[in-house]
Amino acid sequence: MDQRQRLAVNLKAEMQAMERLHFSSNPDLERFSRGGFVVPASASWVYPDVIFPSPQVFQQEGEKKIRALVTHHHDLLWNSPLRALFGNDRRHFEKMVAITADFHVEACGGPRNYTARRGEPHLNIRHLPFTITEADREQWLDLYVGALKQSGFSLESAERYWRWIESLSLRMINRRSRVAPPKRIPFLQIQDLLREEP
Amino acid sequence: MDQRQRLAVNLKAEMQAMERLHFSSNPDLERFSRGGFVVPASASWVYPDVIFPSPQVFQQEGEKKIRALVTHHHDLLWNSPLRALFGNDRRHFEKMVAITADFHVEACGGPRNYTARRGEPHLNIRHLPFTITEADREQWLDLYVGALKQSGFSLESAERYWRWIESLSLRMINRRSRVAPPKRIPFLQIQDLLREEP
Repeated sequence: MDQRQRLAVNLKAEMQAMERLHFSSNPDLERFSRGGFVVPASASWVYPDVIFPSPQVFQQEGEKKIRALVTHHHDLLWNSPLRALFGNDRRHFEKMVAITADFHVEACGGPRNYTARRGEPHLNIRHLPFTITEADREQWLDLYVGALKQSGFSLESAERYWRWIESLSLRMINRRSRVAPPKRIPFLQIQDLLREEP
Repeated sequence: MDQRQRLAVNLKAEMQAMERLHFSSNPDLERFSRGGFVVPASASWVYPDVIFPSPQVFQQEGEKKIRALVTHHHDLLWNSPLRALFGNDRRHFEKMVAITADFHVEACGGPRNYTARRGEPHLNIRHLPFTITEADREQWLDLYVGALKQSGFSLESAERYWRWIESLSLRMINRRSRVAPPKRIPFLQIQDLLREEP
């Protein structure tokens, strides 16, 4: 009989996170151990706005730099543990990278080659077959910091770009492995990293 | 390089579900293909109330019948594709079934053996390591219909019990594989199945 892949989850830490998140702000909440018999409704998974980059990113940086950024990011992904998400077929991977680059170019205000070929992106649906956790998203974004650093993007373009990918990437998480909501990583937090000497 | 398990998702059907759910009710929503640049915030994962069964279930049915119900349900699980979630160690499985039975007895108004031994249930956290999809929950509930049918529970107790497990089970889903919210399965929908001759 097959077994399903299991995630290593620190249950004790998650229980403590639950206490902090849930019970510390609702001290009157009924607890099961005290005979509470309702667990109230809650929205556990809220997607914030996704703000696409303004067309100025395309105007200022141009298609070539945007494509190079996407390609570089995917080279980093291919050499990271996240490669497990992509399978082993390098040729298939490269095709997918080209399509992704089309999407990024269009999202930044460039020609609409992505939608002409593929239709609406609905990226959360396209990612449904691939199991993506909160930690996977963070690693994906981490690698984007490295790629942005070498992209030649102005700090202004990098900020517009980051605001988009940081919010969009939340919607790719389809496997929750933590009690806490996925982390937000504001541009301010990575700005200094981008400025450092390589 | 390892590959991750992938889910078989019907992307076309999910795209159509997205159209129905999202765009048909928001005809003015900006579409990416028309240069829309905001995807508005949304709560994609809402947990409704969990209503625990009233203590009358324990009073009317008693510990023995509740334990037998849980054990029977788990026998059905062990012989179903959901066994992949439990691993192959039958002795470990049986221990877990006994703990689960403690929990169900307590939830139905019986002695508090579960919380005395294990503390607060926080079942969503305890299930985090195990990947559970919407379809897994439906299959788990389906097997409960069969188990309830042979439980000897009155229709009234079965309703109270079902209302609990149907709502609680929503919180075990940690792997979303569909655009649509998880299905609600009201007692009315299974009532006739419980009444049928075995």
